[in-house]
Amino acid sequence: MLEDKNTQKTSLADLGEFGLINHITKYFTIENASTVTGIGDDAAVLDASKKQTLVTTDLLIEGVHFDLSYMPLKHLGYKAVMVNLSDVYAMNGTAEQITVSIAVSNRFPLEAIEELYSGIQLACETYKVDLVGGDTTSSTKGILISVTAIGKVEKEDIVLRSGAKETDLIVVSGDLGAAYLGLQVLEREKQVFNVDPNNQPDLDSYTYLIERQLKPEARRDVAGFLKELAIKPTAMIDISDGLSSEIMHICSQSKVGCKIYEEKLPLDPQVISACEEFNLDSTMVALSGGEDYELLFTVPIADFEAIKGNPNFSIIGHITAENQGLNLVTRASQEIELKAQGWNSVKEA
Amino acid sequence: MLEDKNTQKTSLADLGEFGLINHITKYFTIENASTVTGIGDDAAVLDASKKQTLVTTDLLIEGVHFDLSYMPLKHLGYKAVMVNLSDVYAMNGTAEQITVSIAVSNRFPLEAIEELYSGIQLACETYKVDLVGGDTTSSTKGILISVTAIGKVEKEDIVLRSGAKETDLIVVSGDLGAAYLGLQVLEREKQVFNVDPNNQPDLDSYTYLIERQLKPEARRDVAGFLKELAIKPTAMIDISDGLSSEIMHICSQSKVGCKIYEEKLPLDPQVISACEEFNLDSTMVALSGGEDYELLFTVPIADFEAIKGNPNFSIIGHITAENQGLNLVTRASQEIELKAQGWNSVKEA
Repeated sequence: MLEDKNTQKTSLADLGEFGLINHITKYFTIENASTVTGIGDDAAVLDASKKQTLVTTDLLIEGVHFDLSYMPLKHLGYKAVMVNLSDVYAMNGTAEQITVSIAVSNRFPLEAIEELYSGIQLACETYKVDLVGGDTTSSTKGILISVTAIGKVEKEDIVLRSGAKETDLIVVSGDLGAAYLGLQVLEREKQVFNVDPNNQPDLDSYTYLIERQLKPEARRDVAGFLKELAIKPTAMIDISDGLSSEIMHICSQSKVGCKIYEEKLPLDPQVISACEEFNLDSTMVALSGGEDYELLFTVPIADFEAIKGNPNFSIIGHITAENQGLNLVTRASQEIELKAQGWNSVKEA
Repeated sequence: MLEDKNTQKTSLADLGEFGLINHITKYFTIENASTVTGIGDDAAVLDASKKQTLVTTDLLIEGVHFDLSYMPLKHLGYKAVMVNLSDVYAMNGTAEQITVSIAVSNRFPLEAIEELYSGIQLACETYKVDLVGGDTTSSTKGILISVTAIGKVEKEDIVLRSGAKETDLIVVSGDLGAAYLGLQVLEREKQVFNVDPNNQPDLDSYTYLIERQLKPEARRDVAGFLKELAIKPTAMIDISDGLSSEIMHICSQSKVGCKIYEEKLPLDPQVISACEEFNLDSTMVALSGGEDYELLFTVPIADFEAIKGNPNFSIIGHITAENQGLNLVTRASQEIELKAQGWNSVKEA
């Protein structure tokens, strides 16, 4: 006899849009005093504040930004929030609210949407942000998530991309390239699975890489570390498209050049061994991998003593005059021009 | 000889994401003092304000919310903004900023995206809102737009859905049902076109209906009209899903009932004649049509003299005790229960 495997599945059509919204939002609590009214009216109401408001938005689309064959829906929800919070932290601000719009095709039952929102909820709890609105609709194909994050910052604390000055040090939090390699590992396992679904992959030596790809964390802690060190960056950006692409944004908006030192790039041991295995150049991976969601910033050279040796940060280079261009100094002390090979979603698809 | 009809078309892949953003955003100017930094950094920066902040978001997807065979891209861009501004106005606020994220498949050349953004730009200019951010990416199918609108409102001016009181009058701006009938006309013409592409449709008698569907205007003016009349609504909502659905939101959130009078529903003459032609009940169309983007609100009965006869508003009923339910009083003085048959995007797809 055939077993009905779908007994636990609730169709979205039965629930309807408002039923779905009520069902999902009952698990969310409000954490921030600035959230006056969240979901349930035409618009969310946020309290007046002496601080300035930060707004950022990102769109993630199945088949373009993620592959559900290895991205669990809960992780997808978590990551969609992280991508946006990361932009708020890159302004030196505090993220306080998000709106989340999703479109799903009818192939997804309610339980799938619950999984997605459980990841969003975990992100909200962990990062103390409130879900204050959104839209849920059907799609003709696949799933997509559009998140807008709203944050606050004291006017004098804002760090733009445009403030880097000649001789400033270039600093990056954490390490680079792991998320990209995590994607390579997952893509390879997908191919293996397609050939032999019974193969049990041994992913122990890639745990850090896979976690960086599937469950990135936005660097909410960096602002606090910098405050302890009494450092205010002159320019800051988050690394979503790859280090090369991001340093180019800082340099072009600050009208400066830069020197990045290959030997200074922070790499996790798993990145180095996976690069050997995949026959990839680890410097290229660090420069162009993307999705690290680390913060890249510049600080006055006077802060060198304060920041050197701090386990959270790596000094990877310095800002130069604009006419000197953007250069990578290799381990062999050769200077080569930096090229943006960051992930370009319009070009790739 | 074959003519290359694509000489004017620029591929999005050639331009790249950053090229596309630069290309599009150069046409936009900043109108609001509260916009400190718009596009070009990790997040937009909005000025501190004594007013409260309103945030709302909506997602429009090709094949679900619009059909490009009769929705010109410029109109789509305009409408996507209107849908969101309408929610800000429904809180009695002023819309000041928007973010716009789009995903497009490679079937769209740059010129199509320019058309879309020219509509967004026209909406920004007309309604004095600033485009401050967004995301552009590729899609695996079709086009979608996600807009977030940000507004401001004095704390004491906010109108929620939850404030309606027994005996309050129920008032609607403009007229109802035209956008839905516009859609019926356009759908019919699409069918005719599919059968006979050379047929020249005569749409003169449907101009108002089609305009309401393709180029709706959000009711930015209502707040001013009400201020002139010294009226503050007790509850307000915009009509996106249809009058029935919206009055249900007000009643459930205000914990009241209502009586709506069929004979009081404001209908344009084109709505009446098109209903006859399409063999549709005009009351049903007014109640359930949706996409009117008018404002539905309740005012104390003491405001009756101030509001009656005002050409911008129609008094269509009154609020009752919750236990009396939600009722439509027909022209024959029969009371029938109101049912929400508003457009439910999850159910329909």
